[in-house]
Amino acid sequence: MGQEKNFVEDITNIDENFAQWYTDIVLKAELADYTDTKGCIAIKPYGYAIWENIQNYTDKLFKKTGVKNVYLPVLISEGLLQKEKDHVEGFAPEVALVTKAGGEELEEAYCIRPTSETMFSNLYSKWLSSWRDLPMVYNQWCNVLRWEKETRPFLRSREFLWQEGHTIHATKEEAEARTRQMLDIYEQVIQDLLAIPVLKGRKTPKEQFAGAEATYTVETLMHDGRALQAGTSHYFGQNFTKPFNVKFQNKEGKEEFAYQTSWGISTRLIGALIMAHGDDRGLKLPPKVAPIQSVIVPVAMHKDGVKESAMALYEKLCEKYRVEIDVREQYSPGYKFNDWEMRGVPVRIELGPRDIENGKCVVVRRDNQEKIEIGLDEINEKLSEILDDIQTNMFNMCKERNKKRTNIATTLEEFEKALNENQGYVKTMWCGDVACENKIKELTGAHSRCIPFEQEHIANTCVCCGKTASTMVVWGRQY
Amino acid sequence: MGQEKNFVEDITNIDENFAQWYTDIVLKAELADYTDTKGCIAIKPYGYAIWENIQNYTDKLFKKTGVKNVYLPVLISEGLLQKEKDHVEGFAPEVALVTKAGGEELEEAYCIRPTSETMFSNLYSKWLSSWRDLPMVYNQWCNVLRWEKETRPFLRSREFLWQEGHTIHATKEEAEARTRQMLDIYEQVIQDLLAIPVLKGRKTPKEQFAGAEATYTVETLMHDGRALQAGTSHYFGQNFTKPFNVKFQNKEGKEEFAYQTSWGISTRLIGALIMAHGDDRGLKLPPKVAPIQSVIVPVAMHKDGVKESAMALYEKLCEKYRVEIDVREQYSPGYKFNDWEMRGVPVRIELGPRDIENGKCVVVRRDNQEKIEIGLDEINEKLSEILDDIQTNMFNMCKERNKKRTNIATTLEEFEKALNENQGYVKTMWCGDVACENKIKELTGAHSRCIPFEQEHIANTCVCCGKTASTMVVWGRQY
Repeated sequence: MGQEKNFVEDITNIDENFAQWYTDIVLKAELADYTDTKGCIAIKPYGYAIWENIQNYTDKLFKKTGVKNVYLPVLISEGLLQKEKDHVEGFAPEVALVTKAGGEELEEAYCIRPTSETMFSNLYSKWLSSWRDLPMVYNQWCNVLRWEKETRPFLRSREFLWQEGHTIHATKEEAEARTRQMLDIYEQVIQDLLAIPVLKGRKTPKEQFAGAEATYTVETLMHDGRALQAGTSHYFGQNFTKPFNVKFQNKEGKEEFAYQTSWGISTRLIGALIMAHGDDRGLKLPPKVAPIQSVIVPVAMHKDGVKESAMALYEKLCEKYRVEIDVREQYSPGYKFNDWEMRGVPVRIELGPRDIENGKCVVVRRDNQEKIEIGLDEINEKLSEILDDIQTNMFNMCKERNKKRTNIATTLEEFEKALNENQGYVKTMWCGDVACENKIKELTGAHSRCIPFEQEHIANTCVCCGKTASTMVVWGRQY
Repeated sequence: MGQEKNFVEDITNIDENFAQWYTDIVLKAELADYTDTKGCIAIKPYGYAIWENIQNYTDKLFKKTGVKNVYLPVLISEGLLQKEKDHVEGFAPEVALVTKAGGEELEEAYCIRPTSETMFSNLYSKWLSSWRDLPMVYNQWCNVLRWEKETRPFLRSREFLWQEGHTIHATKEEAEARTRQMLDIYEQVIQDLLAIPVLKGRKTPKEQFAGAEATYTVETLMHDGRALQAGTSHYFGQNFTKPFNVKFQNKEGKEEFAYQTSWGISTRLIGALIMAHGDDRGLKLPPKVAPIQSVIVPVAMHKDGVKESAMALYEKLCEKYRVEIDVREQYSPGYKFNDWEMRGVPVRIELGPRDIENGKCVVVRRDNQEKIEIGLDEINEKLSEILDDIQTNMFNMCKERNKKRTNIATTLEEFEKALNENQGYVKTMWCGDVACENKIKELTGAHSRCIPFEQEHIANTCVCCGKTASTMVVWGRQY
């Protein structure tokens, strides 16, 4: 008690060593921690509260479009995983296998799900019989496991949490529409809730999901100019429904195979939040997704009436906002200011004896450090305006940065130069040949992010081979 | 189209073959289905919606008491699981092991969590340093795996969903109080939400959780007179914190080991719902937890204005209730009535041309088959009263049955007779010797359910050995 601390543990400078800065934030803001299970993290309360906010927001949007939640087994027999050729090739190398259970060797090993297309397809073949049963629009919130070699908290963890939606439809058109509809929901989640602008488009065949006919993506750009794939939605056609025998009797009484989709977002979005918004002071959370939207820090806490006034304010704001009050005895106000900034809380409210005398409090914004004096009688109303403004401002700041970091290249030299000097996205024309894609990757380290839905005409020829090209692709180094 | 069906697929008579009746309900009400992963079920939308309602209700109560949600790895290294002797003895035989991953044999195998005391303890030892960090009151909603030999959907599935709370405290008293507090929350969930009366008490040492100092339980009684353990809360003392080195500096600057608890409820509660309330017509869901509280069935749907009136009523009720409208063309109203009764929807609203003419609708209660005519202008208000009344009535019906099925025995002969003739609970005095517990089990098949908090003096001697006894125990055959 009484032992005063006035500093927050150091965070690595964001522009000196971004990777280390990221790790510092994850650990010091107590979002997650490493565990004895190599490559797997423990998501701590503050990190999990972010995930819960993402879940609640997303799940409501899902349900409005008729999505129904289910839960399927975490264990998938090896035989089942192998039924779709491209799919197993894509996932087999990363699979974890259960070979013993209940004290015995198993006759057939089980995979821990890396994704559940096979399990859903297998069950859909059992559940589907008539066109009347269609569509089936199911989703599950669950854990999955992929045995990655290099791992990083949230971004690439062996186990992660996600939702995986799997749907079947009577027609190709309906399935395609559902694929795009779910991509639009991801856009809404990432832009409106997380305040991160997205680039929407279709993946090139090389970057497609294992077994898909088309993969659509929402791409985001991080502080260091690297891209992060934030959500994907896949159209499978009948690639799974044929080997898995998912068929139905149509209105004319004929048997047909169903058309399928899947779509997912994961705890990776927490990594996106950290890297899109953070700065040298630490994490910076958009108000809509922040577990704590505002923290009240009493100043000169032991002066008459300060703690009481702060508590009264807290009680009032609690009804409408997610608020904390910091009455820790062992820390100075200065320490607390830094600490809550590092944890990314959008608004700090300072309240001292002078403020109370004047019927005011001091509101400090995390996004731009602006200090505003606000009457205690109007703070309850004004706060929501301020939070809205922060949300918008954070989105716009990212948008501004993306703009600056979106380059155009018509030759490989321009491509390399742009990427080395400015990072970010590179827009080019592309002939459609995977050889050019591979060459660009080798030369620059950039992957194609997507073929944006909003196409522009940049040039007449492919940035790589110089042949006629009519498709614009956006490229970038990636997480 | 137009093909009329007037019957619902047969459900086994509940009193002829309860086990088969149970399976029929699970499958035909589409709560869950079997999968190719032996012993693991797929929880279908209707079943999962029940689980979501249980989760939402419970999670809110948790959070009010300061519980914070986290997520820890599903894989626990074998070494970690073995650190607490009793615990590993209890769980090792049921564990599933990951021995290969990423294409390689692992040096040390990982267990899929059967429960997470060891993982939490391991992390707490890292996270805890000062008394200021205490208590830590963490919980996770997740999947667990126990390789059971005999499985039944919801009741005993190899994989199931649950919440597991794990807390550490500075004092024994605080930890014990938390253990009891969480048991009270389970009581509230099971009684108020699920309308199932509980018997609260402490488990005998023989029935305790592996590694616990005390296990508290909420016990429930099913339609067939068998008992079901519906939730448990454990006090561990320092049994885990010592081997896992979970210690803190107390206010006096001395190192101390923390005191620990854990507590859980699972998807087993869906099994309890089925078996506590169901009848020959099928499932019977209490309104508070029912995914669909009321279904509107238009009668003579193709007569002028019927469908429109039904839709208008649906739109109105939707704002306040969870409502469905059944406009399927291929089924007759009679079929629909049976179908929704089988699915346990608490209230059916019938609306035909005559009703519309009279400005009325017919409300049919699932709990007692009562039919009530209600004006269309007052149904929106009245419905909530009816649902409340059904909720109360269902609880009271169970309570009444429990009363009838609670037997008192002072000798083993009385014990056997009661159990054979009346099933249910048997209250007796018990000397405290595990030998008597074992003998009763052998003779009658009954396990001790608990030592109820509310003790009664039934006799002076143990029902088994005849020695002096001052403890009342409740026994029963169990799920």
